[in-house]
Amino acid sequence: MSSNDVLRQLSEVLEARKNQASSESSYVASLHQKGLNKILEKVGEECTETLLAAKDAKVSGDNSDVIYETADLWFHSMVMLSHLGTDAEAVLQELARRFNLSGLDEKASRQS
Amino acid sequence: MSSNDVLRQLSEVLEARKNQASSESSYVASLHQKGLNKILEKVGEECTETLLAAKDAKVSGDNSDVIYETADLWFHSMVMLSHLGTDAEAVLQELARRFNLSGLDEKASRQS
Amino acid sequence: MSSNDVLRQLSEVLEARKNQASSESSYVASLHQKGLNKILEKVGEECTETLLAAKDAKVSGDNSDVIYETADLWFHSMVMLSHLGTDAEAVLQELARRFNLSGLDEKASRQS
Amino acid sequence: MSSNDVLRQLSEVLEARKNQASSESSYVASLHQKGLNKILEKVGEECTETLLAAKDAKVSGDNSDVIYETADLWFHSMVMLSHLGTDAEAVLQELARRFNLSGLDEKASRQS
Repeated sequence: MSSNDVLRQLSEVLEARKNQASSESSYVASLHQKGLNKILEKVGEECTETLLAAKDAKVSGDNSDVIYETADLWFHSMVMLSHLGTDAEAVLQELARRFNLSGLDEKASRQS
Repeated sequence: MSSNDVLRQLSEVLEARKNQASSESSYVASLHQKGLNKILEKVGEECTETLLAAKDAKVSGDNSDVIYETADLWFHSMVMLSHLGTDAEAVLQELARRFNLSGLDEKASRQS
Repeated sequence: MSSNDVLRQLSEVLEARKNQASSESSYVASLHQKGLNKILEKVGEECTETLLAAKDAKVSGDNSDVIYETADLWFHSMVMLSHLGTDAEAVLQELARRFNLSGLDEKASRQS
Repeated sequence: MSSNDVLRQLSEVLEARKNQASSESSYVASLHQKGLNKILEKVGEECTETLLAAKDAKVSGDNSDVIYETADLWFHSMVMLSHLGTDAEAVLQELARRFNLSGLDEKASRQS
């Protein structure tokens, strides 16, 4: 199985958690209930932390923090996409289009 | 083929362009030659544009700009990862670990 | 004369340039004509450059770049305030209120 | 008294709080003790909140939030300047130089 199916599986997890009854049971559901601004604040916050971790990685040679923070950044941008009614598939499709990559499956094609 | 292989293919494209002889021949090579700060400025810039596009999408109901800007954000964060000697695979692996997802192939496992 | 009158004088300069006939004659007028998103992109961009300059200053001990980038950040946030119909005076007043500082003159008080 | 002396007074408050014995007694002292990255995370966070508040102000016509968030942004950038051993005076001086403003007092001149 492709490691890249991670984003698709994660999209499904995010959708499932979007409408959970109790916001206490899920960080993702609580973000959706707080609304778009709170989600975007998290995206901005994780971007800043990614930049700082990258500067530190350049000095230390240790990439573990910048990988962790980039995961946070991508995760929260996926919550943003979910909140707006779209998902990572649309982003991957846009990247594939730009770079002339193969790898768009039927589902992605139907969404375009 | 999984749509998510887009990120792996794109990683390969980014690696190939990283060390091109002439920076004029490739936007990616020119970013690497300008150095980490210029790459991080682009990551920050694309994050801001993503936030603004998300606010506008909420009002207009049209997600095309926010998808485009998120693609820019992910793309430039992949250039950042490449510049630091790592890649999207490590980020996907971190996301899979957190969310207990399957989808880690052998290559990803060996990198951990 | 107080060095801090700089912000008031700069507010006046910004207002004068806001409505200039030709956007070519002024960077500030051109920003206003391009609209709020373009102005906010500049604020975000200058914030990123400030963060990177601060990280570099910590290593090099040279603060000249971080001072320059913070000036850019404050300047573009003043253009933003002007675009929205308010100004630095309102921000200074808010800071004075929080920290129980004196220094609010009559004009500032009238604006509250 | 000039309303703009607010920044000078605030610089003095920030310096006084920088070295307080107990970080519990002051938010500013606690930021300094946590270090530059934590301070820069706050600057980035407040920048994001300023951008979102500006977008909302454009729709609602109410500037109170964007003024509040800009105050937060400037305040935390002053803590950053203080942490690096400089202050708002240097930023104002840079702005005055660019825009050919008067208003540089002797203290500011000596710092240049």
